[in-house]
Amino acid sequence: MSFADNLKYNSDGLIPAIIQDVDDNTVLMMAYMNKDAVIATVETGKTNFWSRSRQKYWIKGESSGHIQEVKEIFYDCDADTLLIKVKQHGGACHVGYRSCFYTKVNKDGSTETVGEKVFDPDQIYKK
Amino acid sequence: MSFADNLKYNSDGLIPAIIQDVDDNTVLMMAYMNKDAVIATVETGKTNFWSRSRQKYWIKGESSGHIQEVKEIFYDCDADTLLIKVKQHGGACHVGYRSCFYTKVNKDGSTETVGEKVFDPDQIYKK
Repeated sequence: MSFADNLKYNSDGLIPAIIQDVDDNTVLMMAYMNKDAVIATVETGKTNFWSRSRQKYWIKGESSGHIQEVKEIFYDCDADTLLIKVKQHGGACHVGYRSCFYTKVNKDGSTETVGEKVFDPDQIYKK
Repeated sequence: MSFADNLKYNSDGLIPAIIQDVDDNTVLMMAYMNKDAVIATVETGKTNFWSRSRQKYWIKGESSGHIQEVKEIFYDCDADTLLIKVKQHGGACHVGYRSCFYTKVNKDGSTETVGEKVFDPDQIYKK
């Protein structure tokens, strides 16, 4: 897994991964991977991340079924950011939206919600 | 500038900003902003960043002329990542490519360069 060795991880051993829809290039979310999560993502073909808040691995969709099939992987000129194009099953955002970037900043500094919910989190995530 | 106050900055006071082409949704680059850079980005309509390596502000295009006109600003459900849609003048990557994500990882773990250079850095950046 030569490329995972060549990435530049931050002082916490993490690299940010931008997740983009392979079909229409919508940016769905950004989350962090450590080296093992990068390797697991390649080997399983599904996005694996490291949760900074929970300090554990997580597979996108492990609770919701909303997995991300990995289609293409890129990294940037500094080798410190990943861009992963995926086929998203269900919605990417745990709040219920297709993309986590559903808050738009208006020119006057106020914000508005854009996009519609594609699932009901109360029904998807068992409590 | 209420929304800049509501963003969650990391322990270095920074928030990652994904820069996306407003026309075709290509992800061009990712860089970091502190709160003042967020405010300057909104007020000037051009992307401003904080350089972690140089510990100084920089305006995208200040040397190259390859500015990014800010068209839309979003932030994610955790308020810890920005997504900024821009009209990119010239190329976004200092190496000469349109996007910094010009390195693609193949299924066997090898990498290849995708995309073509849109400018010659030696001619654009004065030495």
